[in-house]
Amino acid sequence: MPDTELSGGDLTLVAVVLVISLAALGFAFYLSRAVMAADQGTPKMQEIARAIQEGAGAFLRRQFRTLGVFAVIVFVLLLLLPVSDGGVGTRVGRAVFFLLGAAFSASVGFIGMTLATRGNVRVAAAAAAGGHRPAFRIAFRTGGVCGMITVGLGLFGASLALLLFQETGPVVLEGFGFGGALLAMFMRVGGGIFTKAADVGADLVGKVEAGIPEDDPRNAATIADNVGDNVGDCAGMAADLFESYAVTLVAALILGQVFFGPVGMVFPLVVAAVGIIASIVGILASNPGAGDSSWMAPINRGFFTSAAVSLVLVAVASFTVLPSISDGLDVSVSPQVLGFVSVLIGIVLAATIQQLTGYFTETSRRPVKDVGRSSLTGPATVILSGISLGLESAVYAALLIGAAVYGAFLIGGAAALYAVALAGCGLLTTAGVIVSMDTFGPVSDNAQGIAEMSGEIDEEGAQVLTDLDAVGNTTKAITKGIAIATAVLAATALFGSYNASIGDALDDAGATLGDAFTLVSPNNVVGAVIGAAVVFFFSGLAISAVSRAAGRVVFEVREQFRTRPGIMDYSERPDYGAVVDICTKDSLRELATPGLLAVLAPVAVGFGLGFGPLAAYLVGAIATGTLMAVFLSNSGGAWDNAKKMVEDGAYGGKGSQAHAATVIGDTVGDPFKDTAGPAINPLIKVMNLVALLIAPAIVGMSVGDDENTTLRVLIALGATLVIVVAVVISKRRSIVVGGESDTTTSALTTSAP
Amino acid sequence: MPDTELSGGDLTLVAVVLVISLAALGFAFYLSRAVMAADQGTPKMQEIARAIQEGAGAFLRRQFRTLGVFAVIVFVLLLLLPVSDGGVGTRVGRAVFFLLGAAFSASVGFIGMTLATRGNVRVAAAAAAGGHRPAFRIAFRTGGVCGMITVGLGLFGASLALLLFQETGPVVLEGFGFGGALLAMFMRVGGGIFTKAADVGADLVGKVEAGIPEDDPRNAATIADNVGDNVGDCAGMAADLFESYAVTLVAALILGQVFFGPVGMVFPLVVAAVGIIASIVGILASNPGAGDSSWMAPINRGFFTSAAVSLVLVAVASFTVLPSISDGLDVSVSPQVLGFVSVLIGIVLAATIQQLTGYFTETSRRPVKDVGRSSLTGPATVILSGISLGLESAVYAALLIGAAVYGAFLIGGAAALYAVALAGCGLLTTAGVIVSMDTFGPVSDNAQGIAEMSGEIDEEGAQVLTDLDAVGNTTKAITKGIAIATAVLAATALFGSYNASIGDALDDAGATLGDAFTLVSPNNVVGAVIGAAVVFFFSGLAISAVSRAAGRVVFEVREQFRTRPGIMDYSERPDYGAVVDICTKDSLRELATPGLLAVLAPVAVGFGLGFGPLAAYLVGAIATGTLMAVFLSNSGGAWDNAKKMVEDGAYGGKGSQAHAATVIGDTVGDPFKDTAGPAINPLIKVMNLVALLIAPAIVGMSVGDDENTTLRVLIALGATLVIVVAVVISKRRSIVVGGESDTTTSALTTSAP
Repeated sequence: MPDTELSGGDLTLVAVVLVISLAALGFAFYLSRAVMAADQGTPKMQEIARAIQEGAGAFLRRQFRTLGVFAVIVFVLLLLLPVSDGGVGTRVGRAVFFLLGAAFSASVGFIGMTLATRGNVRVAAAAAAGGHRPAFRIAFRTGGVCGMITVGLGLFGASLALLLFQETGPVVLEGFGFGGALLAMFMRVGGGIFTKAADVGADLVGKVEAGIPEDDPRNAATIADNVGDNVGDCAGMAADLFESYAVTLVAALILGQVFFGPVGMVFPLVVAAVGIIASIVGILASNPGAGDSSWMAPINRGFFTSAAVSLVLVAVASFTVLPSISDGLDVSVSPQVLGFVSVLIGIVLAATIQQLTGYFTETSRRPVKDVGRSSLTGPATVILSGISLGLESAVYAALLIGAAVYGAFLIGGAAALYAVALAGCGLLTTAGVIVSMDTFGPVSDNAQGIAEMSGEIDEEGAQVLTDLDAVGNTTKAITKGIAIATAVLAATALFGSYNASIGDALDDAGATLGDAFTLVSPNNVVGAVIGAAVVFFFSGLAISAVSRAAGRVVFEVREQFRTRPGIMDYSERPDYGAVVDICTKDSLRELATPGLLAVLAPVAVGFGLGFGPLAAYLVGAIATGTLMAVFLSNSGGAWDNAKKMVEDGAYGGKGSQAHAATVIGDTVGDPFKDTAGPAINPLIKVMNLVALLIAPAIVGMSVGDDENTTLRVLIALGATLVIVVAVVISKRRSIVVGGESDTTTSALTTSAP
Repeated sequence: MPDTELSGGDLTLVAVVLVISLAALGFAFYLSRAVMAADQGTPKMQEIARAIQEGAGAFLRRQFRTLGVFAVIVFVLLLLLPVSDGGVGTRVGRAVFFLLGAAFSASVGFIGMTLATRGNVRVAAAAAAGGHRPAFRIAFRTGGVCGMITVGLGLFGASLALLLFQETGPVVLEGFGFGGALLAMFMRVGGGIFTKAADVGADLVGKVEAGIPEDDPRNAATIADNVGDNVGDCAGMAADLFESYAVTLVAALILGQVFFGPVGMVFPLVVAAVGIIASIVGILASNPGAGDSSWMAPINRGFFTSAAVSLVLVAVASFTVLPSISDGLDVSVSPQVLGFVSVLIGIVLAATIQQLTGYFTETSRRPVKDVGRSSLTGPATVILSGISLGLESAVYAALLIGAAVYGAFLIGGAAALYAVALAGCGLLTTAGVIVSMDTFGPVSDNAQGIAEMSGEIDEEGAQVLTDLDAVGNTTKAITKGIAIATAVLAATALFGSYNASIGDALDDAGATLGDAFTLVSPNNVVGAVIGAAVVFFFSGLAISAVSRAAGRVVFEVREQFRTRPGIMDYSERPDYGAVVDICTKDSLRELATPGLLAVLAPVAVGFGLGFGPLAAYLVGAIATGTLMAVFLSNSGGAWDNAKKMVEDGAYGGKGSQAHAATVIGDTVGDPFKDTAGPAINPLIKVMNLVALLIAPAIVGMSVGDDENTTLRVLIALGATLVIVVAVVISKRRSIVVGGESDTTTSALTTSAP
């Protein structure tokens, strides 16, 4: 291993990076001022917006209270867990940075969502005033705030840890990444269940049963649906990309130190700082101009501008920061070329994933058209065609990501894993713009909802919002694809860090790895099967949680229609708060089981079967997780757009049999694409980080002086027991809902005309 | 490695095993005589049965013609591929045994199906005569013929190879297993597409559009539907279990030779012979008696009797055939205990999988009830609850199978892989009874179809057939679960053989393995991702093939209703043969792409990325394949039974909204459970066998004197190119169907009342 001391020059460079990260936060503040200065619209719009703000704020505060307790428990556990490198100071630092990562992740979600719930009404007001461009600008800048906070806080944490802890910085950052990933996973799952329970519930009872349009103010679930867009799509996605960003940096720093010493740690930070500059340029470049042919044009300009700026600056950085010859490492190219090409692979991957996802989910392309046409033979063929589309598209995405990893492997030689981590950094140089694009989606969606509910917007303004919403659907699908790619690269790199950590721990215990990591041992095959199984289980739990919570929403809305007969003729106001409450309580209760599964399954496998099967477990989870995440996202996206296609007039348009068939497809797709699918990203990383954190403890109990099989097996059994109890409790809940559901039927029957 | 010469005593024992395998065939002949002697029913029944016989026979003959060409190509390729052990004689033997395995696999399917299409009408006739017990007995004995031929031919081939080739027998048997698996995979895919295209097509146009019941003679697709039951459920399943049986024996022989020499090869054959005796006892024990409380009782008695007989005989065999002390191998228990416990694990696994599958797919248990209840909120919730049930149940099945593999690993020590293979043999000691149970399903289903179509059966007789059909549904689900378990054990063991083969080849080339098989290298992670991706792709292709072919069936039946207006009032006869023709042509055309994918993807990965990534590829495919297979089977099974539950009167019964919702679920489930899901079993094994066969060639081109990177890369590119072309061609086909589908709509519109 190369020399590990950071030189004065290195530290100065890190300090510069820290300043750039603060500049990102400053730019976010500047953008938010611009958004807040815009007109807030009519009092009625403001009233609706306030209801959404309150609901979203209440949910997040409650969620943070629940998760706070959990974070404190993990904090204590981290203090107890041994570290592979460094003493008590490192251990405490890691635990403190865990809290910092969790707090940053929560803050990104909270601030982004707070601004989104203020931006939405301003976008609606700008559209009401008839301005396409001002409305677009406000929506995109609202996203920009979110984007710049995401990258700013991520880079701030990473550079701070390196400044404070220097050579043990990477170990401390494990805590930072874990805190970010854990919070993000819970926010993804909780927010995902909230948003889809409200959405599916509102659709089932509103569109299908009562025959009233989407976002109709008579539907008691309509505010909850809009709250859900903010807590799921906006806060959840922001936290998710924050943790992707943080975790990728963590992996790059750990591996950089292993292969290239201090400069290996500094370079990823420089790449990230380059990304911040590129993102600022990109956001400024995405101002719509007179020459733009469509509303996707400025967004694409923003993305590709920032990619181009990154490329140039990364080339400069590679050839100035990195050494031209490698120090005794078996690498066929110079570190400079290795660094540049790896980052380049990541940037290219982001661009190709964007195209691929677009192909499979845009209304104008063949796959979605095929799903739309299958609506002629009914809902069953819509479901089947969407599922086969999802399965196939997952394969292409996996092959693309696989090609990127393999490319990094080829260029990286002995430092292959570092190259993979750098490709991940490359993928994220455009993160600022990507988060902006993504947040653009729920903000436009909400603006449309507010306009619809207030009834105070003319046809021209409504058209503006419809246009923006369509663009938002495309950008949301694209960012999901990129988020999954970052997850795979980060997880593959982290997995390499796991290997390094096991190696260190074995060295300390005076033992060798031997054949523990071989692919061809039956116990490792079993580990891989369990890893794949956890992805299936997690997806199944998330989907069934949405079904359960949506059932309760349906029950509540039906009940309100029954007990307040004035709702239908607008003489009575539905109780929106009651539905928000149900979604809040249910989503927080439902996130426990998948959350515990994610954290404890690696503990059970690692302590129970050993560190070899745990490595295989991670491989199984990465391989299956990649495919499952893309499958769920793309099937869902295709069904959503097939429905839009029919609503735009194909195959009989609204009200036809074909429309009914695609509405069923869309409902099935909701929890696929917005709950289970996106939560797999943080899931994969949380599991890798847990493995990384427990690696020294597992090795310690397995070999050498501290060998303690009894304790090891007890820990595994304890973790398994907690998972089993959590699963059993959630099954019992479904019995209760079943009972309610029967009541529901009778409630419906008695109130039916 | 222990001494490899087989002693005279060993050879005598193998000869005895050969005689027992012939006895199984004799018993099959005896059973078939008994079946054929039964009454054939009325002339109208016979006429219908003949139509089914002709259709099924025509399909299989055409399929064999197509596959024959393919088999000859593979035969030539096998002659060219180097072997890891032995000379030209071995190479020729392996190629000849490939043809033999393929021929046996085809024969098992053909004979089983031929008898099933004769047994069905006799079951109908016995039921018409009012006899519960005679009808049951004929149905089960028809299955028994299939079962005994399956195990008889499998064991005959394995013991013959060992007698003829002795120590190079295992290498020759690679060809035998590959032939069996390849044919089985094609029969599974082809038969699966045929049966579900006809079934889904018949349902969409008959039940949904025309409002006529299932199996109504006015539906032109009804004969094709019954033909499909035979070629898919019966011929396909028999071939599948034949190859599971053969491949498990092959893996056990290869590994047995590696770890224990000759006795390691002889013991699995003895276990299989014990299984034949146990199966004969089991089939005889399943005669229904006066004391049986339900029609599942005699079937369960047959299964558990054969399991008990196996257990006792295996204990005797272990302690007489195997040595009491191991020869320098690091195994904590004696070979006798190792052998007995491993086989025991397999037998126990069969019993527990049976229980688990029953829990998730039986109408009387909670999971299916929950899916049924979700029909109250419409088809979307039916689909979602079925999918989450499938995902979760896959996890439990995977954990059970994983536990069995891990158990074998623990008991096996250094010979862990052999223990896994022996557990596979244990699982298959009851294979004779399992195939009988499975074939019972389509025979009963067909008998009901014939009775319904002929209209010549009274209420009592109809009740007999309904009872038998319900039992058949349960047995079919159970055997699917067991088939998946055998696939995983066989694949894990084969995967061990792959390792051994790579080791041998490297020794020959004077090279060492080094870190090639490590889990933690990025290129191996990519291999695992591709392996998982192939399972997703294969499933997607199979599902979309059914959608396409079913679309054509719908078109044809609609066309017949339009051009022959007399069909609805029975004054005109529909052209059944036209639909059988469409299904035949389409399924043969559609099986090419998934088939080529299965054979060529390992070639592309192995030659392109190397033998390390190919090992990871296999792990990814095994892990994901296990879960996907159970997910698809159980989701489909649960939807099917949720529909039956509603048809039996729950939630409004037939004709209600809930019924419509469950019919949609069942239609989605059809290609899940009968096309894609079951085809994953042979897929996993075909890929492992291809890897095993090409292992020496890959090593030869990668290291040593014959290193030839250009040729290696060219082979990989060639394989990739063929896959890409096949995929592109099948996509083009879907455009044509799309065009037809538009015509279809107008055809429907003009003929609509």
